[in-house]
Amino acid sequence: MLVVMQHGATPEQIDGVVRTIEEMGYQARPMPGSQRTAVGLVGNDGRVDSSRIEALEGVAEVIHVSQPYKQVSREWQPESTIVTIAPGVSFGGGEIPIIAGPCSVESEQQIIASAKAVRAAGAVALRGGAFKPRSSPYAFQGLGKKGLELLALAREETGLAIVTEAMDDEGAHLVAEHADCIQIGARNMQNYSLLKTVGKIGKPVLLKRGMAATINDLLLSAEYILAAGNDQVILCERGVRSFDPAVRNMFDLTAIPVVHKLSHLPIIGDPSHGTGIRGMVTPMARAAVAAGADGIIVEVHPTPERALSDGGQSLYPEQFAQLVGELRLIAGSIGRSLAASGTAAAAAG
Amino acid sequence: MLVVMQHGATPEQIDGVVRTIEEMGYQARPMPGSQRTAVGLVGNDGRVDSSRIEALEGVAEVIHVSQPYKQVSREWQPESTIVTIAPGVSFGGGEIPIIAGPCSVESEQQIIASAKAVRAAGAVALRGGAFKPRSSPYAFQGLGKKGLELLALAREETGLAIVTEAMDDEGAHLVAEHADCIQIGARNMQNYSLLKTVGKIGKPVLLKRGMAATINDLLLSAEYILAAGNDQVILCERGVRSFDPAVRNMFDLTAIPVVHKLSHLPIIGDPSHGTGIRGMVTPMARAAVAAGADGIIVEVHPTPERALSDGGQSLYPEQFAQLVGELRLIAGSIGRSLAASGTAAAAAG
Amino acid sequence: MLVVMQHGATPEQIDGVVRTIEEMGYQARPMPGSQRTAVGLVGNDGRVDSSRIEALEGVAEVIHVSQPYKQVSREWQPESTIVTIAPGVSFGGGEIPIIAGPCSVESEQQIIASAKAVRAAGAVALRGGAFKPRSSPYAFQGLGKKGLELLALAREETGLAIVTEAMDDEGAHLVAEHADCIQIGARNMQNYSLLKTVGKIGKPVLLKRGMAATINDLLLSAEYILAAGNDQVILCERGVRSFDPAVRNMFDLTAIPVVHKLSHLPIIGDPSHGTGIRGMVTPMARAAVAAGADGIIVEVHPTPERALSDGGQSLYPEQFAQLVGELRLIAGSIGRSLAASGTAAAAAG
Amino acid sequence: MLVVMQHGATPEQIDGVVRTIEEMGYQARPMPGSQRTAVGLVGNDGRVDSSRIEALEGVAEVIHVSQPYKQVSREWQPESTIVTIAPGVSFGGGEIPIIAGPCSVESEQQIIASAKAVRAAGAVALRGGAFKPRSSPYAFQGLGKKGLELLALAREETGLAIVTEAMDDEGAHLVAEHADCIQIGARNMQNYSLLKTVGKIGKPVLLKRGMAATINDLLLSAEYILAAGNDQVILCERGVRSFDPAVRNMFDLTAIPVVHKLSHLPIIGDPSHGTGIRGMVTPMARAAVAAGADGIIVEVHPTPERALSDGGQSLYPEQFAQLVGELRLIAGSIGRSLAASGTAAAAAG
Repeated sequence: MLVVMQHGATPEQIDGVVRTIEEMGYQARPMPGSQRTAVGLVGNDGRVDSSRIEALEGVAEVIHVSQPYKQVSREWQPESTIVTIAPGVSFGGGEIPIIAGPCSVESEQQIIASAKAVRAAGAVALRGGAFKPRSSPYAFQGLGKKGLELLALAREETGLAIVTEAMDDEGAHLVAEHADCIQIGARNMQNYSLLKTVGKIGKPVLLKRGMAATINDLLLSAEYILAAGNDQVILCERGVRSFDPAVRNMFDLTAIPVVHKLSHLPIIGDPSHGTGIRGMVTPMARAAVAAGADGIIVEVHPTPERALSDGGQSLYPEQFAQLVGELRLIAGSIGRSLAASGTAAAAAG
Repeated sequence: MLVVMQHGATPEQIDGVVRTIEEMGYQARPMPGSQRTAVGLVGNDGRVDSSRIEALEGVAEVIHVSQPYKQVSREWQPESTIVTIAPGVSFGGGEIPIIAGPCSVESEQQIIASAKAVRAAGAVALRGGAFKPRSSPYAFQGLGKKGLELLALAREETGLAIVTEAMDDEGAHLVAEHADCIQIGARNMQNYSLLKTVGKIGKPVLLKRGMAATINDLLLSAEYILAAGNDQVILCERGVRSFDPAVRNMFDLTAIPVVHKLSHLPIIGDPSHGTGIRGMVTPMARAAVAAGADGIIVEVHPTPERALSDGGQSLYPEQFAQLVGELRLIAGSIGRSLAASGTAAAAAG
Repeated sequence: MLVVMQHGATPEQIDGVVRTIEEMGYQARPMPGSQRTAVGLVGNDGRVDSSRIEALEGVAEVIHVSQPYKQVSREWQPESTIVTIAPGVSFGGGEIPIIAGPCSVESEQQIIASAKAVRAAGAVALRGGAFKPRSSPYAFQGLGKKGLELLALAREETGLAIVTEAMDDEGAHLVAEHADCIQIGARNMQNYSLLKTVGKIGKPVLLKRGMAATINDLLLSAEYILAAGNDQVILCERGVRSFDPAVRNMFDLTAIPVVHKLSHLPIIGDPSHGTGIRGMVTPMARAAVAAGADGIIVEVHPTPERALSDGGQSLYPEQFAQLVGELRLIAGSIGRSLAASGTAAAAAG
Repeated sequence: MLVVMQHGATPEQIDGVVRTIEEMGYQARPMPGSQRTAVGLVGNDGRVDSSRIEALEGVAEVIHVSQPYKQVSREWQPESTIVTIAPGVSFGGGEIPIIAGPCSVESEQQIIASAKAVRAAGAVALRGGAFKPRSSPYAFQGLGKKGLELLALAREETGLAIVTEAMDDEGAHLVAEHADCIQIGARNMQNYSLLKTVGKIGKPVLLKRGMAATINDLLLSAEYILAAGNDQVILCERGVRSFDPAVRNMFDLTAIPVVHKLSHLPIIGDPSHGTGIRGMVTPMARAAVAAGADGIIVEVHPTPERALSDGGQSLYPEQFAQLVGELRLIAGSIGRSLAASGTAAAAAG
């Protein structure tokens, strides 16, 4: 940590900073400059609360040099973590799994049809919401426990791994019982009580980036899960708030190389929520794989025009099949490959 | 709702939209234009899922004319809601209550000293976190239940009303027992399970705007609480994410007149989190009152340089006392007044 | 400047950074830490191009400690600059001048009526565009030179000082001939050729903050003008791009205390462009003065519903008169006062 | 255009809107709804100034249905425009040209070495700034006219087409004399005087998206150039301002499919400014091609660690050569190909 003093700070003020740093149990190294003095804090273990120092007389600014997270950092663990949610469905290695399915589980017929369609096209995992966080209290909120049972049924029929969202403690335990991976949605990325719960449950977690979360925020939220004892965390870029109404969200693909540099955790892309518009899903899914994403999660619905939610951003099954073909070639262009649906199928067989 | 067709949409595509709208139980009014046709959907009760229509062939865009929220709307209830959290502490009328206190409850000595100082300066309610949502899992997380008991003690000693945050269901019930108003923090603004819980508990709720929430999002979150049966909701602007690192957040005071126009709920300002820098708190608190805020919530600490959290944005008691004096004059300039601490004191006496 | 090395950077890499800093003519101070080493660059005169160092092996990040601007800085000149554009119309002292008038000069009748109305209500300067930067090439682009002559006529009739925008070199010279203050609009804030031109002309400049300019960017643009020899610069907050469509722009009032801390230049607020909605102009103008603005620039039109541009954000003259009354009281609440229109009138008499 | 009335607007107010629309020469179609009335304006030719209507009594909101631009629209011209800046260097068809080179022209030796290196690796055009818009007035501002002459020399030696920036009218004429394509930088995207000038000059223009420009703004700026008689415009996504300091800009690749949908103009990607960090350039360049970019512009420097500007985001020649190989495969995956350097070379031979 570097404490930058105001231009013209007095020797007493500089001493005050040095003394406070020492009282806190760290070493202080004053560094006089041509315009102003800075004081380095040495020995920061990531727990220093800079706010106490910011409040001292003569301090202009406190600059953080150490990262505030620890276990998620690539400095803590240089080799990439591989998160396996089901046999053959691993994120973070050379293979790129594709997760696909409808926004919500609507009925047995719909989820089974969806599962078969996405499996045929090359997906290895099925998405589908049973608990739906909707902006409006009057919108369809999902089938709840019944939805989870239908997802489990779809797994039996197709061998696809199941990824679905939990919104609270009770839901997290239910999802853990029925699914292979617990999704934490963007709106709950900083719901720390929920993060601690899924940390303790120990099932793989798909953690979506919040609407306006920095990568630093995302990694700190993941740190909550690791700190609770669970390192099976897959991060997910799903678009952030922007000033341009041309798309629902701004899909920030730079998040992918940034996370790969800072953390050993895998990161996947969600081009459906990332853009909110069907016509943008295919190009942005391709871009995500080209940028190095460790997986893709895409909304596909057998009949989008009849979907109870997010119909406008769901692909038709045939569009999805064509996309998978392109993704296979792009993955190959950068020395990777798509996870083969055969593997998961075998496990189910 | 207005469905804008693509330039060159065929009559069949327009018919398709008309038919779908009618199937959904609404009336459709095609409106041919010089560049393109639009189809009005008449009879929207706020529940139409536009996504189904967006997915139709030939549709360029769906434009929402009705607001997606209902009970929070000023069209639903023209007169302003007044939320009273304790005798003499009412938000939304002519009087402006001031809530002040430390970021966290740290000890009996600290919270009692804080309460006395802010009361002496003119505050009518005490803030102070017992459950703290911290970005890092390694930062001080608050005293929990013990903190709530200390807040209750401070109320006994000073007569101040108590406002404190809850982060989950269990915490919400505990806060409801000990405090006068349950705060939902920015990070939990879209934690719908928690919103439903505080809706059912029925205590007054202080709902903070999320990091990148639009006013529309904020009102929809409030709608969750009203829909669960609780209309005692105070909204709070506390700064949003911005591109400028000059301040921690961008304090969006325009939120105040916008909310007053769209909703009957009161809205207050939090210049401490709104800026994150002590030197900015005073000017922005003044600005909030001048913009029409129905209250102010400010961090004040007896010794900010020793605070366990947020010391850098906490006012010294004497700075706060001077601020209250200025706020009193500014309130008078626009025909309002500060809520008098005497009232609450009397209740305590 | 502080060069933060990667965790595990080798001694050779650290030496490389030290050597490069020394080659560039500065001193290097390595500072080993518990997690990583940092190297301080001492003697930075503000011209160091950090990019060369960022490119070295083993460097994680370069952190700037010195500010990149100089002459605009309060460290360079502690006392506030007072910019006087006409007798009695000074920005940056205790008095707060109000600039008001229509978006565009439309006709002699309109601009004279506007000038008389705003003068009667308490304005000391007249705004009105002769050259209009419009997003669409098909929108009304202003009366050009004819507009400038009408503004000069309005000055003769009312004694009001004139503030109007220039969009290019030729326009800047014309504006300098006819007006008292050259406005550089938000879209040209980083048009460095134009900044150099107005720097050389030497007339007072009103520099508006760009759509997504940080305060640092704004100060650097002002630095261009000062570096060209003109220190008569008034900064102006006019709203920035945001994610919330509820208002046209997000009026960032925190800019006011931030600029006051970092720079000796005055800063005023433009609540008309800052919000883009008539109903928000009054509360936000009040908030700007309460936040410490050194002036206000407001759109007022005798008949907004017939305005050729920006009618929806222009105040009616009577609304403006009421606003001025409130601003007078608010200014008084914080120990300031409005600049009296009498002064300017006297000069004109 | 749709005029949405306030809930409870009176018949007189609705009549007022209808009358105003008719006075303006358009047809009005009132559309009563269950919650509020809307009035459609029919016959909008894109020139309606909505501000006049927004100002009427009882109006809640004005919603634009027609796009504000015309000649750049894909509705105006369905087939894609192909912009050819030199023989074999065409943007907007199946082939994807790569533009590469240093941030600034620094010396004859440097620009010739750069040109040879990028040509050998597969680029067909050379970038390099002679006029540099720098945030600080004290930073290196480019070699000016001398730089243009060196670029022309590099073209003679290598056959590469030349793309370089102009910052004002005088510069635009100089660039037009020496180069094949005039670049308008992000900071000048709304410098309408300059846009009109390059529209009249008639040379191909590379128009970069502004820091916080919506796609709508970008298209309107292009409309200025087309309206002045020049339809040889290439758009360029180069990253926008964001809240996340992890990268210098947020590279918004969704701009590519959005522009392709709305306009017939080609759009390319600039991953160097788009991210500002060397390690992110390669993945984001790949992502841009996968997203459908019609070209790529990349900073490459023979010795980035000695560059006078932007060294930290410049690729080493060998990194660039490997990138081109990957881009070739990705282009092939989606049915496109890279423009061959042979073609341009032949033209030079």
